[in-house]
Amino acid sequence: MTKIIAVTTHDVRFPTSLSMDGSDAMNKDGDYSAAYVVITTDDPDLTGHGFTFTLGRGNDLCAEAARQRGLPLIGLDVDEAVADLGAVYRGLQGDSQLRWLGPEKGVIHLALAAVMNAMWDLAARRAKKPLWKLLTDMSPTELVDAADLRYLSDAITRDEAIALLEELRPSRSEREAELAVSGYPCYTTSAGWLGYSDDKLRRLLQEAVDEGYRHVKLKVGANLDDDLRRLAIAREVIGWDANLMIDANQVWDVPEAIEWVGRLAEFKPLWIEEPTSPDDVLGHAAVRKAVSPIGVATGEHGMNRVLFKQMFQAEAIDYCQLDAARLGSVNEILAVYLMAKKFGVPVCPHAGGVGLCELVQHLSIFDYVAVSGTLENRVTEYVDHLHEHFVDPCIIENGAYRLPVSPGYSAEMFAESVADFSFPDGRYWSSARQPAVLAAS
Amino acid sequence: MTKIIAVTTHDVRFPTSLSMDGSDAMNKDGDYSAAYVVITTDDPDLTGHGFTFTLGRGNDLCAEAARQRGLPLIGLDVDEAVADLGAVYRGLQGDSQLRWLGPEKGVIHLALAAVMNAMWDLAARRAKKPLWKLLTDMSPTELVDAADLRYLSDAITRDEAIALLEELRPSRSEREAELAVSGYPCYTTSAGWLGYSDDKLRRLLQEAVDEGYRHVKLKVGANLDDDLRRLAIAREVIGWDANLMIDANQVWDVPEAIEWVGRLAEFKPLWIEEPTSPDDVLGHAAVRKAVSPIGVATGEHGMNRVLFKQMFQAEAIDYCQLDAARLGSVNEILAVYLMAKKFGVPVCPHAGGVGLCELVQHLSIFDYVAVSGTLENRVTEYVDHLHEHFVDPCIIENGAYRLPVSPGYSAEMFAESVADFSFPDGRYWSSARQPAVLAAS
Repeated sequence: MTKIIAVTTHDVRFPTSLSMDGSDAMNKDGDYSAAYVVITTDDPDLTGHGFTFTLGRGNDLCAEAARQRGLPLIGLDVDEAVADLGAVYRGLQGDSQLRWLGPEKGVIHLALAAVMNAMWDLAARRAKKPLWKLLTDMSPTELVDAADLRYLSDAITRDEAIALLEELRPSRSEREAELAVSGYPCYTTSAGWLGYSDDKLRRLLQEAVDEGYRHVKLKVGANLDDDLRRLAIAREVIGWDANLMIDANQVWDVPEAIEWVGRLAEFKPLWIEEPTSPDDVLGHAAVRKAVSPIGVATGEHGMNRVLFKQMFQAEAIDYCQLDAARLGSVNEILAVYLMAKKFGVPVCPHAGGVGLCELVQHLSIFDYVAVSGTLENRVTEYVDHLHEHFVDPCIIENGAYRLPVSPGYSAEMFAESVADFSFPDGRYWSSARQPAVLAAS
Repeated sequence: MTKIIAVTTHDVRFPTSLSMDGSDAMNKDGDYSAAYVVITTDDPDLTGHGFTFTLGRGNDLCAEAARQRGLPLIGLDVDEAVADLGAVYRGLQGDSQLRWLGPEKGVIHLALAAVMNAMWDLAARRAKKPLWKLLTDMSPTELVDAADLRYLSDAITRDEAIALLEELRPSRSEREAELAVSGYPCYTTSAGWLGYSDDKLRRLLQEAVDEGYRHVKLKVGANLDDDLRRLAIAREVIGWDANLMIDANQVWDVPEAIEWVGRLAEFKPLWIEEPTSPDDVLGHAAVRKAVSPIGVATGEHGMNRVLFKQMFQAEAIDYCQLDAARLGSVNEILAVYLMAKKFGVPVCPHAGGVGLCELVQHLSIFDYVAVSGTLENRVTEYVDHLHEHFVDPCIIENGAYRLPVSPGYSAEMFAESVADFSFPDGRYWSSARQPAVLAAS
């Protein structure tokens, strides 16, 4: 019998604000950070790693919340726990004192994501499979038992969810074989940060084209003249056959979003991402109606499955960009994938940040093999930052994620990276005393 | 010139789980707690006090978040700050690193509420007025400048908001004089906690009737047979002319809510409160349609103004129960009151917990005097717990809140209460080592 003996948390922050990586109209100076969780067992070869992603200040709150969330795991039998991760999730989530602080949103929910991501990593390692394979080997009933369907029965019932999964079950292996050859298609945001100069933008866009990307995304929304100039550069470099997406990071009110996107329509964007408050279901529906045929995409700040349910019910979005470190891990993500399938909305997960690409590749592969069965209108985000800190980093070839082969959820960071960038006492922060240190104090 | 010199925070927890005060179908064992903020200035006679309310575990996260939220206040000139609390609010709220952890929801937003509640308390003390009077003495433009209208322009514009307030401005003093005589009507939840025996329920209901209450509220949703029996007792004691409200505290899915409330309809409840997830705008709209003429009430977990905007736009609720410690203080609450007025929805604030009654009395009085101008369908919650810890506790007479007269927001707790119940090192927690201590560790 193997037991969980500790759940440790780390406040890890990278000084990305120094290079303006990740800069957009709302988030001008983020220090990409992870509230990082390590589950240790009495088997020294078996650990679980997970995290949630933040922008710096407040990452300590998520790490401490994850520590509190993780306490009930200590002493659990690993095999019992990984055999019913739905029960483990409901046990942690059901703490009614912590629930009050959300419910199911904000710091307390980000912390649940971090801890359960580590549990899913542990489960995949125990099974000696990459996470996507662990999931695609689960039966429809096992998957639905793990999914959090609370508050969703007016949109999808348990029986409907099982039936959806049963339909594709016989053909799973065909799609798995297909992805083993082609990989899962992705797009790049690395070129389009708002803080980059026109020259850097042009150079990075050309590199993206040369690397085989068919989709690129630019940040917009701070200044209309800048947007017009930058989008013109983008079309000049990528041409009109490639797909161009734009992302406003929530800076507009609804009427402003409609007007501004109208002014950018000449560049034929595939989607406008986060046109307004991420909580505004009805607002997104209004924007979608007004800017068609430009699609509406949102979800990286989609706080929980109840928000996504309404986005689907209100026909508010064309693309669902769920976030692997904001939703309550695989348990809640499964519910969103099942609803997306029923409502016919493609899921194009949000990535970037710290390690999000490492996570979402598993989810997209699972989605294609077991849930959606199609790649139509699907493309998963990829951003080229900070992968060097991960033990099993994602691999991109020809604009596609290669299938991960190592056991786990690809969430493990090098111990040296964790030590160096732990805040505020890690080697980097205690020695460098960069300007960002002061901002993050 | 008077300056802010410190913002201190305290994790204060009361062991209410020992007596089952506050027990309902979702929250079985809360330890009513406050993340309590004290703003000190270089004038020893001028301080500001505020808090957010939680159920125990995780209150430390809110206190630490409030400490971080409060850092930019240190050094501000008091008179400049209180002259433009809209700017102070936007300054704190605009921290884009902390924003990522919500945005505008969960721990980080509860902390904003705590800090800005203390700032509004400070402003009212500086003006030597109770908060309601500070607000009713502000011009329509000043009120709208303080309000957070971001993301709301598709529901209410700045000009509309000013026009609404101008309309009632000439008659403010009449309504103020009226409330000075009658007080602001309230209802009691003290009788109906789920953990109370039938005998205790019957006795407390009789006491409520004897004290002049025309509205009482019972918790429901854990067991249908219990609900039927308890509601029968309630109608037996209060009769059929008094108003009976029921509160499910989010335990149902939408179809379940509709069915369960249908089974309780024979007791003619005025409203069903929190029938499902507080995030589910479309779900509340569906329940409302199905259970009419029983009203739908929600809002104590309404995370921000964007949620309330949609509740109004979707005609999802009959009663708006905003929370003074969950929304971003008066700045965000003003926006919700303005929208409620425009959409014709009565606001009946949530109270109870720790000190919420002390806060909401000010808001309800302001609403009647300056925004809604009517008491029709309005009744503010009152719960008889923990008032003894407050320096300026609310006073109830004949089922109505008396107008507060002391300067401030009535948010100050006795220093001895803060010291005794500070967690985990206060006198109570360090000496008693009650069972609740273990639960809260």
